[in-house]
Amino acid sequence: METFVFINDDFVTEDKGLIHYRDLSIQRGYGFFDFFRVKDKVPLLVEEHLDRLFRSAEIMHLSIPLSRETIKSVIYSLISKNGISDSGIRITVTGGYSGNGYSLTNPNIIISENQFTLPKEVQYKEGIRLALYPYQRQLPEAKTIDYLMEIWLQPYIHLHAADDILYFRDGAITECPRSNFFIVTTGGEIHTAGENILKGVTRSRIIKAAMGHFELKERNISPDEALQASEAFICSTTKGILPVTIINGKPIGNGKPGPVTELLGRLLHTAHMTGSEV
Amino acid sequence: METFVFINDDFVTEDKGLIHYRDLSIQRGYGFFDFFRVKDKVPLLVEEHLDRLFRSAEIMHLSIPLSRETIKSVIYSLISKNGISDSGIRITVTGGYSGNGYSLTNPNIIISENQFTLPKEVQYKEGIRLALYPYQRQLPEAKTIDYLMEIWLQPYIHLHAADDILYFRDGAITECPRSNFFIVTTGGEIHTAGENILKGVTRSRIIKAAMGHFELKERNISPDEALQASEAFICSTTKGILPVTIINGKPIGNGKPGPVTELLGRLLHTAHMTGSEV
Repeated sequence: METFVFINDDFVTEDKGLIHYRDLSIQRGYGFFDFFRVKDKVPLLVEEHLDRLFRSAEIMHLSIPLSRETIKSVIYSLISKNGISDSGIRITVTGGYSGNGYSLTNPNIIISENQFTLPKEVQYKEGIRLALYPYQRQLPEAKTIDYLMEIWLQPYIHLHAADDILYFRDGAITECPRSNFFIVTTGGEIHTAGENILKGVTRSRIIKAAMGHFELKERNISPDEALQASEAFICSTTKGILPVTIINGKPIGNGKPGPVTELLGRLLHTAHMTGSEV
Repeated sequence: METFVFINDDFVTEDKGLIHYRDLSIQRGYGFFDFFRVKDKVPLLVEEHLDRLFRSAEIMHLSIPLSRETIKSVIYSLISKNGISDSGIRITVTGGYSGNGYSLTNPNIIISENQFTLPKEVQYKEGIRLALYPYQRQLPEAKTIDYLMEIWLQPYIHLHAADDILYFRDGAITECPRSNFFIVTTGGEIHTAGENILKGVTRSRIIKAAMGHFELKERNISPDEALQASEAFICSTTKGILPVTIINGKPIGNGKPGPVTELLGRLLHTAHMTGSEV
């Protein structure tokens, strides 16, 4: 079965998914996107992701060339045309074809459906390892295409026997390149950064799910506080909640996924399954 | 006359200058480039720009898929095929088509020839206005395609009645988004940042040209020092030396282009015209 991708105003086959080299994404790295899961041909949390897409557009001074309703209709057509049960949908909006290679112009929009890989089961069971790195994402509240530092740091990740990077700047941890970061304090409170981060859709779900069960604070967490935490975990659309058991080579808590992380994972899972607005 | 662009291994007409949307430039903003002038069909300082292109590749962990000699031969063919006397050549190298949308792969290379606009004569006569902004370019010594902040700041530039941005971080001025920055102190010395900047080809020429005429120092310049300077100027391949007469609304020196800037401009011009290695 052929895979289709939607570009600007048309469905084309994957091989024809082409963008002119004068686009500001290629010339100047200017663009933003959003990404969400499709499970059994049903797009998950699509409204929340579209909210964030339009918020990114606003921050980036770009107008999305399609209405929200048109984008949704394209998503459903794409799922139907491609016939993939479980996938990721990516909506990419670029700076467009700029005459002077510089000024913003009419954006190009690409809506594509991709296979994607979930984390391995063992990572949920044993947790993952993070390496701290001093960096602050540019325009953090927009989901920009700027992953320069993250890709550039791949050798650093391998060198430090880690699975991913944990960014901090001026003594405050912000986020991982593609996930939000939480700690559970020895007092049993849940803390996560509240500023200079991309506010993840799963992050918001977790904050809601935690209510009534835990004390939750959005505040600056220092690298030292993270290393002294009782538990730590990251979250994202594709990962859900993934325990973090090692940071900079040091075990977090007893070095195993903890009970709070596990309970939150169950609360989030239940919320997804029932579709309830936890 | 049709314009040609070279992509990977082929000259194609401008309208066929297409890149697949899975390229890491579009997906992740990952790529680098270099840019130089062609005057009377002769590419200027091409060896220096190729040196920097290969240096950028090294920093970015990418291998350029063509040899230096092949790139040069493509440049000369492009100039001959396109028949444009005065132009800018841009060599763009991207992260390539990544299977997982993340890992580096075989880069795509695009070599294009563009019309470009020199600064207006009045800007050389009266100088330009800069607005300070706290920012540090990512991987500053590579000429990455990451101009996210620069493009995002266009409304800021207009709001502050400026012509361009001057970046500083932690009390030290680094550079403008597409130019290096120099001051002339009241003592007649020439100072420019020596670290966390892209080392411009014209910048190197100026440093050489200044020797024997002026005391020149590469050091951190604070915003206050810049505001108290006797003269200031920026330089780039396309601009040469351009006087800066206003920073953050405040006149620099007497608010007019100064004699040191003018003399350096003449030294640089002479060096270019004679082709001598000043």
